[in-house]
Amino acid sequence: MEIITKPKEMQAWSEAARCRGETIAFVPTMGFLHEGHLTLMREGRKRASLLTSSLFVNPTQFGPNEDFARYPRNFDGDCAMMRTVPVDALFAPAPETMYPPGSQTWVEVTELTQGLCGAHRPGHFRGVTTVVAKLFNIVKPHYALFGEKDFQQLRAIQRMVVDLNFDLEIIPVQTVREPDGLAMSSRNAYLSPDERRKALALNCALRAADALYRSGQRNVEELERAARQVLESTPGVAIQYVSAVDAETLERPLAPERPIVVAIAAHVGATRLIDNMILGR
Amino acid sequence: MEIITKPKEMQAWSEAARCRGETIAFVPTMGFLHEGHLTLMREGRKRASLLTSSLFVNPTQFGPNEDFARYPRNFDGDCAMMRTVPVDALFAPAPETMYPPGSQTWVEVTELTQGLCGAHRPGHFRGVTTVVAKLFNIVKPHYALFGEKDFQQLRAIQRMVVDLNFDLEIIPVQTVREPDGLAMSSRNAYLSPDERRKALALNCALRAADALYRSGQRNVEELERAARQVLESTPGVAIQYVSAVDAETLERPLAPERPIVVAIAAHVGATRLIDNMILGR
Repeated sequence: MEIITKPKEMQAWSEAARCRGETIAFVPTMGFLHEGHLTLMREGRKRASLLTSSLFVNPTQFGPNEDFARYPRNFDGDCAMMRTVPVDALFAPAPETMYPPGSQTWVEVTELTQGLCGAHRPGHFRGVTTVVAKLFNIVKPHYALFGEKDFQQLRAIQRMVVDLNFDLEIIPVQTVREPDGLAMSSRNAYLSPDERRKALALNCALRAADALYRSGQRNVEELERAARQVLESTPGVAIQYVSAVDAETLERPLAPERPIVVAIAAHVGATRLIDNMILGR
Repeated sequence: MEIITKPKEMQAWSEAARCRGETIAFVPTMGFLHEGHLTLMREGRKRASLLTSSLFVNPTQFGPNEDFARYPRNFDGDCAMMRTVPVDALFAPAPETMYPPGSQTWVEVTELTQGLCGAHRPGHFRGVTTVVAKLFNIVKPHYALFGEKDFQQLRAIQRMVVDLNFDLEIIPVQTVREPDGLAMSSRNAYLSPDERRKALALNCALRAADALYRSGQRNVEELERAARQVLESTPGVAIQYVSAVDAETLERPLAPERPIVVAIAAHVGATRLIDNMILGR
């Protein structure tokens, strides 16, 4: 695996590969990899002749009171995991490379980032779309893979790619879960054993809404109520939001027959977790 | 000259050219070409093996009370002029191609677009940087040429290219002027013969500031005053702003020894004109 730290070198690597007729898949990460990332990478390997990844804990997507400084990091472990896939080239820039003094350009997707996490993390999605636009220009992939775990992020990036005419295809990949149903996340590392058990309430809540949906219920308030009840009956879990919305627009009202996504954010102890489910899938 | 209307076709054209080892220069335009555009194109021809241009009157960079609807258009005349250069490929999309329903992504350069024209045309530069980002992703050039006439636009685009890691180089080209000094602009077509004479006051004002600078004056208020006096003594010319600022940051205070640009916006009759000069150059 080639490790590249300079944007110009990564661009030259990709440009040369494209001109050799290779296709490039790309999995951007903030590191501290788990099976969810590896699934994205394996899917990328299948799609393209070359697989690239990036490892960059992006400061601009963290709020001032969020966990940027203590976000879990393990560069050597991450590289070892990437080599098992294997990843062909890893772009791993220093923070000052990505945001030199004077940086002042933002890429913003407006409507899709208003609700859900966007309402609780001001500036978060602007940081995400900006860094992903930069990474797309640096890595120049044909395919970029994103997990459905971060569903609003996925929708915002899909929209950005269309709106800014990025010459690449976004491949969404289903959320990878622990055997008991907890969605994989680097932030699960923050949980104590007790919190780890309580965190399961997020997935249980989604499955409650899904069961109700499968029984015929289409009223979004009722679907939300079913999920909310599970969370409220778990001590130590504090709901931030429970929302059933159109899975395309992330808004209401839903167009008839359109898929519904239920999205949840909740604190388990001090750790903020998110999860979501497309109902009836 | 190949005329291409679909983004995917333009991307395929450029990708194939890049992989043949060609280099691509790009001159984006809103049409109604004049000698200023042709100078950019001839400079592009010198720099690269292929020359591309675009013709798109971008609605998102016009304010609600501005001249989008009546902006001068002459597609056949523009194509004829491009063929004389010659341009190899022209990207000429329909408006609905560039902004399909649901479009909601903006590229914004923050500090550099606050003052000067940015203060008087809210949303203008956001429209410019967004459409230029789209065009860069569609045309995939190695070089993009912009005139110094739109000086704040040039600085915003240079900043965007650095900040978003576009893999291309911006080539600034000096303002082309009529024999009497009027900066070339598609909007000069709006001027009556009487207004055309009065419009010369913008260039005279800049030359007055430049003369004072060359005589040793470095006080920016004094430089502005010299320019302002010329404009104020011309009936029918209404100043929007006269600003002497750091030519890099477009702000004050100036770093010592840094170039100063004097920028002017003024209405001549109903027509808004801009011009600028880097002093002592």
